[in-house]
Amino acid sequence: MTRVFNFSAGPAMLPEPVLEKAREEMLDWNGTGMSVMEMSHRGKAFMSIAEAAERDLRTLMEIPDNYKVLFLQGGASAQFAMVPMNLLRGKKRVDYVNTGAWSKKAIEEARKYADVNVAASSAADGFNSVPAFETWQRSEDAAYLHYTPNETIGGVEFPWIPETGDVPLVADMSSTILSRPVDVSRFGLIYAGAQKNIGPAGLTIVIVREDLIGETLAGTPTMFDYKVHADNDSMYNTPPTYGWYLAGLVFQWLLGLGGLKAMAQINERKARKLYDAIDGSDFYANPVDPACRSWMNVPFTLANPDLDGEFLKEAAALGLTTLKGHRSVGGMRASIYNAMPEAGVSALVDFMADFEQRKG
Amino acid sequence: MTRVFNFSAGPAMLPEPVLEKAREEMLDWNGTGMSVMEMSHRGKAFMSIAEAAERDLRTLMEIPDNYKVLFLQGGASAQFAMVPMNLLRGKKRVDYVNTGAWSKKAIEEARKYADVNVAASSAADGFNSVPAFETWQRSEDAAYLHYTPNETIGGVEFPWIPETGDVPLVADMSSTILSRPVDVSRFGLIYAGAQKNIGPAGLTIVIVREDLIGETLAGTPTMFDYKVHADNDSMYNTPPTYGWYLAGLVFQWLLGLGGLKAMAQINERKARKLYDAIDGSDFYANPVDPACRSWMNVPFTLANPDLDGEFLKEAAALGLTTLKGHRSVGGMRASIYNAMPEAGVSALVDFMADFEQRKG
Repeated sequence: MTRVFNFSAGPAMLPEPVLEKAREEMLDWNGTGMSVMEMSHRGKAFMSIAEAAERDLRTLMEIPDNYKVLFLQGGASAQFAMVPMNLLRGKKRVDYVNTGAWSKKAIEEARKYADVNVAASSAADGFNSVPAFETWQRSEDAAYLHYTPNETIGGVEFPWIPETGDVPLVADMSSTILSRPVDVSRFGLIYAGAQKNIGPAGLTIVIVREDLIGETLAGTPTMFDYKVHADNDSMYNTPPTYGWYLAGLVFQWLLGLGGLKAMAQINERKARKLYDAIDGSDFYANPVDPACRSWMNVPFTLANPDLDGEFLKEAAALGLTTLKGHRSVGGMRASIYNAMPEAGVSALVDFMADFEQRKG
Repeated sequence: MTRVFNFSAGPAMLPEPVLEKAREEMLDWNGTGMSVMEMSHRGKAFMSIAEAAERDLRTLMEIPDNYKVLFLQGGASAQFAMVPMNLLRGKKRVDYVNTGAWSKKAIEEARKYADVNVAASSAADGFNSVPAFETWQRSEDAAYLHYTPNETIGGVEFPWIPETGDVPLVADMSSTILSRPVDVSRFGLIYAGAQKNIGPAGLTIVIVREDLIGETLAGTPTMFDYKVHADNDSMYNTPPTYGWYLAGLVFQWLLGLGGLKAMAQINERKARKLYDAIDGSDFYANPVDPACRSWMNVPFTLANPDLDGEFLKEAAALGLTTLKGHRSVGGMRASIYNAMPEAGVSALVDFMADFEQRKG
């Protein structure tokens, strides 16, 4: 068996030690004689797994005690509706910042429930930057402000956290969570689909300040009520137990590596190596403002797009897979989440240099 | 490692060959160099897994071509809202049959969206039977009729399918799907959480007649719109890929055993063995009308409830686990889904006889 370096944007690579542990425990977790998948979610064994995962996430992100951590289903797409359904709390107006494809999806869904003010947008420059904070046109009466700290498709990442005062700040952190330390107390609500930096698809993590939940729009499904999940420790219904377990293994792995400060150093180094390779060449290009390039998702194009197919084919033959860019952007995209080893980035950079030398 | 016989109501046992295959493929599926968990859901490898799973389910259940098969998230609890949000189609009134705990949950959620007529209820006899069809008080203008073919907690199973004519029949089959053949063409919509007879928690299967979808209530989240999922082959957003893969392995396992006719024979035999042991003793009792006892969930009580703790402790020591009854029923519950081997039921029956002899 040869493991590949998989640059998929999500579902994405998982740490090999996590997969090995999952393999080892597949038929028998800790002497229980059953797989984690087979355990009652209300039994002692799974409860201990669930609690450890939450505790470790709280440690990693230094989550304050007045925040609930929820282990839900439905991905960011479900959150696009859950956020307005729960956080309007009698208000009608909400602020959204549009920095690309995922912002747009969030905005579109929010329009079903609220009067959406797009407070800022980077459309004018093709979503290759982050709009300067002083240009934002915020509503006075916004129930919250929503933004996307990292745009998975465009490869644009906020290097700063907006200061919204009393207006709760809501962030779709799907593709940046756990990649670096973040001050959770600056946020009202953080959500993230698991399939990039947390675990397998089908698990969604929500971190929400307690005082913001408890009032939902009429017609909100029970399953879309944060308070219901908070009051039941995410076990109102059967949670995605295996994903929860795997997330716990990932959290353990991160703690073992030194936590998020250590990950930030590694991630910055990986990203710099790749951007340096792109910038140091006329053959490769990345269109994003250097001040807000993503550490996690690195789109790049070849000077001659006719070579795209050849590039992808040769890369795959070397075990560098899933590099094809999103159809809306074209070219390539290397997603280099926490689980992508530095050796994977090095191998990609080496191949890029070699390909350029032969084809450039 | 000693595997136990796990009588959990769900998440529940999975077939050992399925777990072994999953273990074997954990770090490398079919030479791709990656785990199924790490694959892009839009890549060729996962698409082939997804398509095979749907094809095998269609074969197993003989699903007609005019039905969509959806692989969703959120469990039955999400379906309790999705069903009325999608199937009212301009109507206001819906019929529900109340045969126990899960029926009641479905009814409660539906009341948010519709005028619910409880067409029949077995409350009068403590939910230990199925109300005779000729007593049902159905609405003339019902958008659909919803029932629960198998009540996981009460252990009551319909031995027949209601004939509702032009009114679409909707069934929560979470704890009975795949346990025996069923004529899908009799239904408008079937849904099932995976964690009993399909695969791990976090996957929900919906089988819906195409003509019923496309019109939703105002305010329905996009993620709760069957049509959106149907039009995108359940890939509108990232689906729970690993659960989908495991479900496919379970479908393969079922086909290898001879499909649902063969499973029905095995399941009937397993259930008969356990009910015979209960009925042949004054020490054990099951309160359910013998005409509608569940093949999947067998609750039973001890004549002397003071012995419950001892029974559970001794059983667990023999590797017969998770037998404690639901708190609302008390006593014991043996869930004997497809993945519970006949040897597990035999071991339980043998232990019950031995325990009775010593303590009865």
